[in-house]
Amino acid sequence: MGDVQLWRELGQQFRVDSVRCAAAAKSGHPTSGMSGADLMAVLLAKYLRYDFGRPDAATNDRLVFSKGHASTLLYAMFRAAGAITDEELLTYRQFGSILEGHPTPLIPWVDVATGSLGQGLPIGVGMAIAGKYLDRLPYRIWVLCGDSESAEGSIWEAFEHASHYELDNLTAILDVNRLGQRGETMNGWNLDRYMERARAFGWHAIQIDGHDVEQIDAAYEEATATTGKPTVVVAHTIKGKGVKAVENKEGWHGKPLDDPDAAIEELGGLRNIVVEVAKPEPGKAHVFETDDSDLPRYEVGTEVATRKAYGEALAALGSMRGKVVAVDGEVSNSTFAEIFKDAHPDRYFEMYIAEQQMVAAAVGLQVRGYLVFASSFAAFHSRAFDFIRMAAISRAKLFLSGSHAGISIGEDGPSQMALEDMAMMRAVHGSIVLHPCDANQTTKLLLKMTTLEGGISYIRTLRPNTPVLYGPDEFFPIGGSRVLRSSEDDEVTLVGCGITVHESLKAADALAEDGIGARVVDCYSVKPIDGETLATAAEETGRIVTVEDHWPEGGLGDAVLAALAERDAHAQVARLAVTEMPRSGKPAELLAAYKIDADAIAEAARALVRTGVPTT
Amino acid sequence: MGDVQLWRELGQQFRVDSVRCAAAAKSGHPTSGMSGADLMAVLLAKYLRYDFGRPDAATNDRLVFSKGHASTLLYAMFRAAGAITDEELLTYRQFGSILEGHPTPLIPWVDVATGSLGQGLPIGVGMAIAGKYLDRLPYRIWVLCGDSESAEGSIWEAFEHASHYELDNLTAILDVNRLGQRGETMNGWNLDRYMERARAFGWHAIQIDGHDVEQIDAAYEEATATTGKPTVVVAHTIKGKGVKAVENKEGWHGKPLDDPDAAIEELGGLRNIVVEVAKPEPGKAHVFETDDSDLPRYEVGTEVATRKAYGEALAALGSMRGKVVAVDGEVSNSTFAEIFKDAHPDRYFEMYIAEQQMVAAAVGLQVRGYLVFASSFAAFHSRAFDFIRMAAISRAKLFLSGSHAGISIGEDGPSQMALEDMAMMRAVHGSIVLHPCDANQTTKLLLKMTTLEGGISYIRTLRPNTPVLYGPDEFFPIGGSRVLRSSEDDEVTLVGCGITVHESLKAADALAEDGIGARVVDCYSVKPIDGETLATAAEETGRIVTVEDHWPEGGLGDAVLAALAERDAHAQVARLAVTEMPRSGKPAELLAAYKIDADAIAEAARALVRTGVPTT
Repeated sequence: MGDVQLWRELGQQFRVDSVRCAAAAKSGHPTSGMSGADLMAVLLAKYLRYDFGRPDAATNDRLVFSKGHASTLLYAMFRAAGAITDEELLTYRQFGSILEGHPTPLIPWVDVATGSLGQGLPIGVGMAIAGKYLDRLPYRIWVLCGDSESAEGSIWEAFEHASHYELDNLTAILDVNRLGQRGETMNGWNLDRYMERARAFGWHAIQIDGHDVEQIDAAYEEATATTGKPTVVVAHTIKGKGVKAVENKEGWHGKPLDDPDAAIEELGGLRNIVVEVAKPEPGKAHVFETDDSDLPRYEVGTEVATRKAYGEALAALGSMRGKVVAVDGEVSNSTFAEIFKDAHPDRYFEMYIAEQQMVAAAVGLQVRGYLVFASSFAAFHSRAFDFIRMAAISRAKLFLSGSHAGISIGEDGPSQMALEDMAMMRAVHGSIVLHPCDANQTTKLLLKMTTLEGGISYIRTLRPNTPVLYGPDEFFPIGGSRVLRSSEDDEVTLVGCGITVHESLKAADALAEDGIGARVVDCYSVKPIDGETLATAAEETGRIVTVEDHWPEGGLGDAVLAALAERDAHAQVARLAVTEMPRSGKPAELLAAYKIDADAIAEAARALVRTGVPTT
Repeated sequence: MGDVQLWRELGQQFRVDSVRCAAAAKSGHPTSGMSGADLMAVLLAKYLRYDFGRPDAATNDRLVFSKGHASTLLYAMFRAAGAITDEELLTYRQFGSILEGHPTPLIPWVDVATGSLGQGLPIGVGMAIAGKYLDRLPYRIWVLCGDSESAEGSIWEAFEHASHYELDNLTAILDVNRLGQRGETMNGWNLDRYMERARAFGWHAIQIDGHDVEQIDAAYEEATATTGKPTVVVAHTIKGKGVKAVENKEGWHGKPLDDPDAAIEELGGLRNIVVEVAKPEPGKAHVFETDDSDLPRYEVGTEVATRKAYGEALAALGSMRGKVVAVDGEVSNSTFAEIFKDAHPDRYFEMYIAEQQMVAAAVGLQVRGYLVFASSFAAFHSRAFDFIRMAAISRAKLFLSGSHAGISIGEDGPSQMALEDMAMMRAVHGSIVLHPCDANQTTKLLLKMTTLEGGISYIRTLRPNTPVLYGPDEFFPIGGSRVLRSSEDDEVTLVGCGITVHESLKAADALAEDGIGARVVDCYSVKPIDGETLATAAEETGRIVTVEDHWPEGGLGDAVLAALAERDAHAQVARLAVTEMPRSGKPAELLAAYKIDADAIAEAARALVRTGVPTT
């Protein structure tokens, strides 16, 4: 069988397998797989360099299905590559099968989860940056995109960044089958529009018939030969191609075919072609030099912003570990990621004001083992929440830093104040949420984060300077807390994190003057939280005031109550948080006005002690 | 003074006022205001149609500062229009002033909050849709955009949707000053790139020198004369224009000038020009016809998906109230917004797979008094979290519907399962979070939502059919709950919402067989939550099991604990939620595997009753 004949047959095999999978599962998106089948046939048979026996091989190409719902096509490719058996293929969507409705890295040959559209291409940008600038290896990133998903702005963030970083190792394959879930896309089969847009965003663009394997071959040849810019292959395809009952018809998205047997017959029947997928040349990733730098140390009593400590510690970590990489959303002079950038310009990637692309790039970079810190204002991580959510499904190891937490930022006003970030980050599966109050604590927690096995960890930092409370040799385990004041006669416990630790200390002083002993707990680890210390405090003091620069929902207060409930520990708990929409003003004015300052804490504690009634 | 001379002087006045504001506040972004000053001078003096005495006038043009940090320029315009005094101008960023760091609708002439970049233009798209298709009035939408923010994908979502909807009443003014916060943008002064991209996205584009008032005038003239497509004026500008010390210099973003007096002198000194802003012709918005439709009614014991009930109720509400409008993110055949679309095609706007634009359009539409329902899969609202957060700062009235909640969706897998949406939505200021379990409850809650004064309300619906528990004439207040089983001997209370209400009822049956009386509470209103009923249950049964198809953080369990704490009510609480990353599988398989089904609930209840120890 000649190449052309093989590709055609392979495309049909992928269609047959898509139909079979969905028929067995009684669900799935076979028609979406059928449109891209020929595009993937040529890729698998001729262009992809991938060792299925060694998915971690440094020089493997990477294939991302940005249109993750076309998973039947991907799984059909795995069967054709000999990576899974036919029996395994037919476990599609069954409970316990790794072949889930949308691809996840439970599958050894899948690096990242897709299925929320518009994410695969920006993640591919991160992988391509890793290949070109960090690993410095010649592997290529192939991303199969749907046309519907180009409505997501994140696709255009990816187009812009890929061009800016001259990612000639990245090829996007745009499967323009005209039909979205519920009807035609905005652009239908107007392929010229996609061509114009791609070119306007600095890409090399090639328009083809996506069912003509010779045109596909020529396009990939041209893509791999193109230097200095990424290439998009804009392919005219037909959804449900090959089966007249569903070809180019509305109403067939996400449904198995009515008569799979007839469809398989129409497609020429079951095939069992096995393709010898080309393996990449061996190679090793570039190794960045390290030195015996130490973490910065801050003197107790000096004043340092935790965001500044973040930047300084990150730069030091970069010197200590060659795998540390940073990305930032055009605010590096505020998050202080710029300190890292200045120290390690080769390992810093500016993501401009594109938080979705920033997080996606981080996800792509960590696939290659980099320890990626992504920083922005804490408020603006909300722009990337869907990407963070998906990163958890990708089992990604990711370090997020959010500066300018809460109302303590002052004059810039509510749009810049993160008051929901702890709720958002706590509600990420397996996440870690840290909110240090001083510079040494920030430094140590950052170091600790890099030793985590995996998962998404978040560090929340402050804009204003805060006093250094802890010496540089102290130890802060994740899941721990610090009891800053404690005595046997304590009648109440004040639990804060970040800026409110300092306010709690002042409140404890004021309460001491009233003869009320107040324990102070610095709950720097909001998730996991130090339930033991809190339960002990509940038992010993009977009353707890939690105070956070955050909305009342989903943050420290909720975390404390959950920890107490888990331990069947009971206390009277007053929860202070920001309950009104804040205004611009000076930080101290705002802390007072929104009742999370020392006065408010002391008042809440007094009320608890005197009346036993929470006043929040 | 001739027009040209006036415009030039007015531009200088805006610069002087920007410098003065920031100097008084000792913070702010004067250089960003200075780059757009001439663009706004010509707009205010000649093109804007706006009655400052009647900001709600139906025919007023709308001006949105997408680059919200240039607020000094906006406030300088208000002074020049006679809307505020010089004294008021100089309260900029002071606590209590409505002139906050970034504009908010505390200012009568500001419709929406900006300050998170990339949001003003997509909101403008919503306003322009309102003008062209709903109000059917000739007002124009003017949006001042920064060049930096064009890195946000949401800007390109707006470009595509504006062109798709042929919004010739929308003009974007792109202030290309080359400099972002920490350095040059990806495109610098390469204005041709912006021109090409805008044209590739179907816009009319005009390139000008943004400091040449005659070119500006000509461009606006051309924009207002262009039909069938939106126009973008791509303006070459200089950041800090007019003051040599800061002109086109890096390091001057977001900072007051070092020597404001010298700068004011260089700009020609203080001016007090007052412009008579042209008022619009009077006019009235189109009124959509209504009829005496009733809400759908479902028979107890039948099985209906709450997402289906959403669509049917929304269509009925559309018939009852002419202001009801719907937008959806290309999943209307899943969210059942398509039922509304079929009934009221004139009031339905397809937003394709662009959730940011979807929410932004809703924010823009509600400015004109429409009751906008925006629907997608609950999981994909996370894509728009920053827009939802900002909508709260905009004091927007918004109705969000999230279908396909939780693992009960089954085979599609975790990317499509919302398990963090309640946490996200609870952490929106002033929000309401509803999660009905049956069709009649869904219908009644939807009706109730439309009677709210304002704020962001969220309704979470289910993919699978669920039994109708409640009759069609029952009443479900927001903040209420329903006690479905109760007796004097109850030893435990089961608290669920949505799918877990049905599982709780089954668990109560199983517990009854064991001789354990279990109260069942349908906590359909997660925020506000019915704390009284929960506190009573805590007191009377001493034990509570909460169960939710959601991660453990930030959802029902947290809300229940917070409500108990507020009332100083104590119980042993076991919290069931999804604690592992779910897989694809059948809904019932998944509910069992992740331990939120009837068996798991009964087991947790038994453990609480027998051992008194929460086992979560």
